[in-house]
Amino acid sequence: MQPNDVHAAWLPPEAFRAIGSRRTLVCGEGTLVDTVRAEVARACARYGGSVDRPPPRPASADRPAAGASYDLVLALVPAALLPVAAAAVDVGYRRRHGSGALGEEGFLLARHAEVTVVLAEAPAGLLYGLFHLVRLGESAFGLTRPTELHRPATRLRMLDHWDNVDVHPVMGQVERGYAGRSIFWRDGARRADLTRVGPYGRLLAACGVNAIAVNNVNVHATEARLLTDRLGDVAAIADLLRPYGVRVHLSVSFAAPVTLGGLPTADPLDDGVRAWWAEATRQVYETIPDFGGYLVKADSEGQPGPFGYGRSHADGANVLADALAPFGGVVRWRAFVYNHRQDWRDRSTDRARAAYDHFTPLDGRFRDNVILQVKHGPIDFQPREPVSPVLAAMPDTRLAVEFQVTQEYTGQQRHVCYLAPWWSEVLGYAPWGDDGPTVADVAAGGGLVGVSNVGDDPFWTGHPLAQANLYAFGRLAWDPRLDPVAVLDEWIGLTFAGSAPDASGIVRRTLHGIMDDSWRTYERYTAPLGVGFMVRPGDHYGPDVDGYEYSPWGTYHFADRDGVGVDRTRASGTGFTGQYPQPWRDVYESVERCPDELLLFFHHVPYGHRLHSGSTVIQHIYDTHFAGVEQVTAMRRRWEQLAGVVDAGLHARVRERLDEQVRCAEEWRDQVNAYFFRKSGVPDARGRRIP
Amino acid sequence: MQPNDVHAAWLPPEAFRAIGSRRTLVCGEGTLVDTVRAEVARACARYGGSVDRPPPRPASADRPAAGASYDLVLALVPAALLPVAAAAVDVGYRRRHGSGALGEEGFLLARHAEVTVVLAEAPAGLLYGLFHLVRLGESAFGLTRPTELHRPATRLRMLDHWDNVDVHPVMGQVERGYAGRSIFWRDGARRADLTRVGPYGRLLAACGVNAIAVNNVNVHATEARLLTDRLGDVAAIADLLRPYGVRVHLSVSFAAPVTLGGLPTADPLDDGVRAWWAEATRQVYETIPDFGGYLVKADSEGQPGPFGYGRSHADGANVLADALAPFGGVVRWRAFVYNHRQDWRDRSTDRARAAYDHFTPLDGRFRDNVILQVKHGPIDFQPREPVSPVLAAMPDTRLAVEFQVTQEYTGQQRHVCYLAPWWSEVLGYAPWGDDGPTVADVAAGGGLVGVSNVGDDPFWTGHPLAQANLYAFGRLAWDPRLDPVAVLDEWIGLTFAGSAPDASGIVRRTLHGIMDDSWRTYERYTAPLGVGFMVRPGDHYGPDVDGYEYSPWGTYHFADRDGVGVDRTRASGTGFTGQYPQPWRDVYESVERCPDELLLFFHHVPYGHRLHSGSTVIQHIYDTHFAGVEQVTAMRRRWEQLAGVVDAGLHARVRERLDEQVRCAEEWRDQVNAYFFRKSGVPDARGRRIP
Repeated sequence: MQPNDVHAAWLPPEAFRAIGSRRTLVCGEGTLVDTVRAEVARACARYGGSVDRPPPRPASADRPAAGASYDLVLALVPAALLPVAAAAVDVGYRRRHGSGALGEEGFLLARHAEVTVVLAEAPAGLLYGLFHLVRLGESAFGLTRPTELHRPATRLRMLDHWDNVDVHPVMGQVERGYAGRSIFWRDGARRADLTRVGPYGRLLAACGVNAIAVNNVNVHATEARLLTDRLGDVAAIADLLRPYGVRVHLSVSFAAPVTLGGLPTADPLDDGVRAWWAEATRQVYETIPDFGGYLVKADSEGQPGPFGYGRSHADGANVLADALAPFGGVVRWRAFVYNHRQDWRDRSTDRARAAYDHFTPLDGRFRDNVILQVKHGPIDFQPREPVSPVLAAMPDTRLAVEFQVTQEYTGQQRHVCYLAPWWSEVLGYAPWGDDGPTVADVAAGGGLVGVSNVGDDPFWTGHPLAQANLYAFGRLAWDPRLDPVAVLDEWIGLTFAGSAPDASGIVRRTLHGIMDDSWRTYERYTAPLGVGFMVRPGDHYGPDVDGYEYSPWGTYHFADRDGVGVDRTRASGTGFTGQYPQPWRDVYESVERCPDELLLFFHHVPYGHRLHSGSTVIQHIYDTHFAGVEQVTAMRRRWEQLAGVVDAGLHARVRERLDEQVRCAEEWRDQVNAYFFRKSGVPDARGRRIP
Repeated sequence: MQPNDVHAAWLPPEAFRAIGSRRTLVCGEGTLVDTVRAEVARACARYGGSVDRPPPRPASADRPAAGASYDLVLALVPAALLPVAAAAVDVGYRRRHGSGALGEEGFLLARHAEVTVVLAEAPAGLLYGLFHLVRLGESAFGLTRPTELHRPATRLRMLDHWDNVDVHPVMGQVERGYAGRSIFWRDGARRADLTRVGPYGRLLAACGVNAIAVNNVNVHATEARLLTDRLGDVAAIADLLRPYGVRVHLSVSFAAPVTLGGLPTADPLDDGVRAWWAEATRQVYETIPDFGGYLVKADSEGQPGPFGYGRSHADGANVLADALAPFGGVVRWRAFVYNHRQDWRDRSTDRARAAYDHFTPLDGRFRDNVILQVKHGPIDFQPREPVSPVLAAMPDTRLAVEFQVTQEYTGQQRHVCYLAPWWSEVLGYAPWGDDGPTVADVAAGGGLVGVSNVGDDPFWTGHPLAQANLYAFGRLAWDPRLDPVAVLDEWIGLTFAGSAPDASGIVRRTLHGIMDDSWRTYERYTAPLGVGFMVRPGDHYGPDVDGYEYSPWGTYHFADRDGVGVDRTRASGTGFTGQYPQPWRDVYESVERCPDELLLFFHHVPYGHRLHSGSTVIQHIYDTHFAGVEQVTAMRRRWEQLAGVVDAGLHARVRERLDEQVRCAEEWRDQVNAYFFRKSGVPDARGRRIP
């Protein structure tokens, strides 16, 4: 990588070697098929292979285009003919998959008579199939392969960009952005140079993401106008993303009928307001026919919403949904509504309860094209929280789960923190017990949404290893059952395909050693046992144990000289445990049964309370904080083994960040340990120095 | 007061009634005498009096211009003739004052044969004499008055404006400004509208201030250029202030020879650097002949300084002093130098020691026109600190004392906090014991400097009652022995001269009730017993007990479950007590003798430690915090008595701020009490609710 170059992330040219060195036939027409053809052609230009269009006589079902003269066939096949076409390459297909359709994005991969075949009903499926081949590399062309059918677990797999058009006086160009400035906006306008957008769409397609929102959920004055007189800027971005099957969504202001339309009200039940949204939306689709939909943060942290007119969030969401319905668009309505002017003295109010209390009474009252977007935990993207009970409480509402790919609370892309194991735990959580559906099942009808961690940084994500979070988010959105370590292995293989030959496996071994457990390491040296939010107010980086303890934000730990934690039980606390179905409502309620890692989220316990691990709470705090720093120090030592093996610029960038991570982890360790030692007076059982 | 008007502060027209209704003769020539004449004329136009110039034949010593036809004579008299002139009006003069000169700014006030006479040697003296008459009002024309000789205690009585030319991304237009924007600068340039500057100079003259620095001590890129290509902007301000005897000073960047001059170094011993400063300064005086001098914050909180070249602060200050000396200018060099990247784990480093450790070795090495500007306390403008030991440790250096009129740490002009009692305590402090000189004596050779609290707010200072701090600063700078309550009484009398007749004394009684003790009230509800700095980091408003506890800023309280406070003794602490001369080095060293109000500044003690007051430390914390809030609530109640008595706009503004003060004081009370209750576990002896 040269200075000023943009890093290729998980699509370096070398990742296309297996495809580019072969003879390929691509059958089908349309924008996305052209993209497939161009990708193969680019690879062939480098590695000597070839790519053909089908012969003039079209391929038919009983005479697939795959011929002896090709190593690889990527073919668009009409849905009705798919079983026949599949059978032609794999007699076992029908038995295993019945007549199930591949749908808009699925594909079928088979290997037959020394030809690798990818079939899809729709162009997007062919594109996803191509990138699947890229991941497989040479193994796609091995002697035998079972036939695979790939369909995404959910339709909506998207990234929300919290990018501002105007530089916000506090939050900057990208709210909670740690990767440079926005690739879309700069200083109040669309960037003149949008050259990062196309390659970004390509990276997204290669990991399975199919939509983005181009502006911050906090919609300020200039950003609101993207809906109307600045819509051309959104269209320009949509044009660049369309070849990769990525649709654009827009964060809109609920007050737009007033602020943009000049109406006297934004009351969702007002006819003029309904008409305004309908007409604004019609114009959006006239300009961007494949526009995805709206995203709304309403009545939250100062944003306007239906409460201002005495209306419910269902009323609010439905007026937008009705405007979008004729065009197939969706409105995503965030469930992140709580009182951010809480009185810390009032222990009966519990921010964790808020989303459930606000939204579950509205279950069944939202239109079909409303998706309620729920943060995965009840608070706010902490490194450890229970799963939001809202996800188990709204059977008649489409629910999307929101993750934070940008590392606001997980080291801000200065710390290595591979988040996929955390997301995987959440997606695999079974709210009704082991035999019931999982969070991933619940989200299938709504979608998976991540807050983007991308900016105009040469490495896209500031910390080069934070690319893995972006990649893994897409992969888990496509298939939540994937093993996060296997996904990381994919990412390593692709990203470092261009490094010095990894015959010894040193790159894989080292990166797994650094990253596999990095989220748990981060958890160890930060807030203990699920209590959360011991971060510096405002920027949320680094420790400040009491930073939010007396604040209006509703994020407390209640540590005193005797103990620590938040009593959220029904018996003696805020009653939050009652928002869960069985078995969790009783598991969390019980100080004995509650999992250690969430103990202080649900219970206030004495420092001497003994965990399932056998340790006391106070000794656990000391031990994990010492261990966390030791693990980060080991990460830094490991990384030195890759000097001279991986790209020098990338190596230097990661080294610099690891230095900061060590410094910051020590700061966390010392502040948390000193804080609890000063409060509890309990010395470390192992006699280590606590400042 | 009408909307959009600017409040008259302590110079409402009614304050000139006594002068304006009389026949006045003004003798003398020059800009400042013209100002005096114009002031009297303006008053006469309103109240029917008259003002004359002297008759063609000049007044002589044995035939003073005062005649039976005038009630008031203000006369400039040559120094040599002063005793004679004085004797002519008051035979007792020589006996009481000898032949002592009045100097540049002094004046003599006498009453003789029903004529009030003000004599001065220099025009500024006449101006100050005039404003003294304004303060006296009718009593200046009473039956008999003893002759009074007034001379300022120190030559330099100035305000430093921490105003930025560019809006700073964090600090804004005015750093630590709580009164709107700058009256000088706006959005990167000089304000087009400078109409506030002249009236500001008039207010300053009327309280005794004779100089201001027009830009922030933190000199950013644009501000640095005020010294060179933007000097015209400074000259424009100087022109508006000159009629009131107020000189301008400039904060300069030590790096200016590099950043503005293009030199390769700013090394103060480099000949090219010396020549650059000399030439830049020559041009300043060519443009502004009465320019006052430079102010430098060097090697402090990121500002450049001589340390970067391996030179001492004396070397650094002297190069500027040499450039200024030919023109009579001074360089003020701030002693606010400390390590702001301290490790909180390191208890041996003590920020309180820093200024002494840095500067006392340099005593005697500064040029005569260098003034070392020392913050009054060793930390940073807290509501309670000991006096800086630097003030007792540099006998061969001119020292100025720096106060903070802007209420950064004392309620940010949202809280009533009349600071003069605090400044008065500092100025009256006798570092060598009761028989020795005071801080005021030490500062006589250097000056008194305040950080301005003024902006373009209609009330000048945001909180209307904060005007009293500005007024009192000037009055104490002129005469540090004044009683702060008497100064407040002056201020009330002047400021509310135009209110409904105060025959019942309700305005005076109410404002004294609110303001006299307001600093101690503020102290009660904030950080206890001198420990300081329990404020929210960054903006420094409101409580955050641990806000700086684990920070690099060197401002800690070390509270644990057993006790609180900073051990600064020689016996077991940082040794800071050793920076004081006797008797204080032993008084502060002793936990028994140390004054209660500074106990936690000097000692770490158990919560059960008994104060001289008889209370324990923990009970003192509870009691003062409950009492402080009660007192603020009483303030608000008192203020309601002035509804309909004082100007409605002013009344509303103060009411709104008192509401906020009550809210914030309750927040302080509850956070501090909850913090220490959680830590100590000691219940309130009086059983009040601690959240």
